[in-house]
Amino acid sequence: MGSIVVDVMLKPEILDPQGQAVGGALPRLGLHGFTDVRQGKRFVLTVDGEVTDAHLSAAREAAETLLSNPVIEDVVSVHTLDAAHDTEGTERADGQGDAQ
Amino acid sequence: MGSIVVDVMLKPEILDPQGQAVGGALPRLGLHGFTDVRQGKRFVLTVDGEVTDAHLSAAREAAETLLSNPVIEDVVSVHTLDAAHDTEGTERADGQGDAQ
Repeated sequence: MGSIVVDVMLKPEILDPQGQAVGGALPRLGLHGFTDVRQGKRFVLTVDGEVTDAHLSAAREAAETLLSNPVIEDVVSVHTLDAAHDTEGTERADGQGDAQ
Repeated sequence: MGSIVVDVMLKPEILDPQGQAVGGALPRLGLHGFTDVRQGKRFVLTVDGEVTDAHLSAAREAAETLLSNPVIEDVVSVHTLDAAHDTEGTERADGQGDAQ
């Protein structure tokens, strides 16, 4: 059973009050060093069996037509969910490696 | 200028009416083959300069305390945003490779 992840974010020029609220709350919780916060959406589409090119193609069409509003949002990513990379621990290690 | 991505999803046992609505709409748009849709949140935290371990540690704390409700939500990923991997095209290629 495969899954496809679609990430949708507001376009950079669109104000994001939710993200701003989070960004304002972080220092009050003692968490410093963040200059900006943006909030977007993450969809996980599950398919029967393995993810095929047809599934990815349908997911991309869904991302553009149903999951995002092209006037104010960008589809930033449509990709297969790799279970091994979607656990917090693994991503942490990868993330640190990618920081360079 | 680095960025950290925090992905938050509802726990599997929590009903997701938004995701169900999307899942019900897909076949009406002619997009078949999806058995389930779940909707979650994606936060992008921007930091000055490169992402350090301290930033990641603060982001993980923010993810658990402010960005998610631990009663109903899981933090599925806290990782550095790799610009090269967050474009639709690149993720597509990677995603297909990861499908195995």
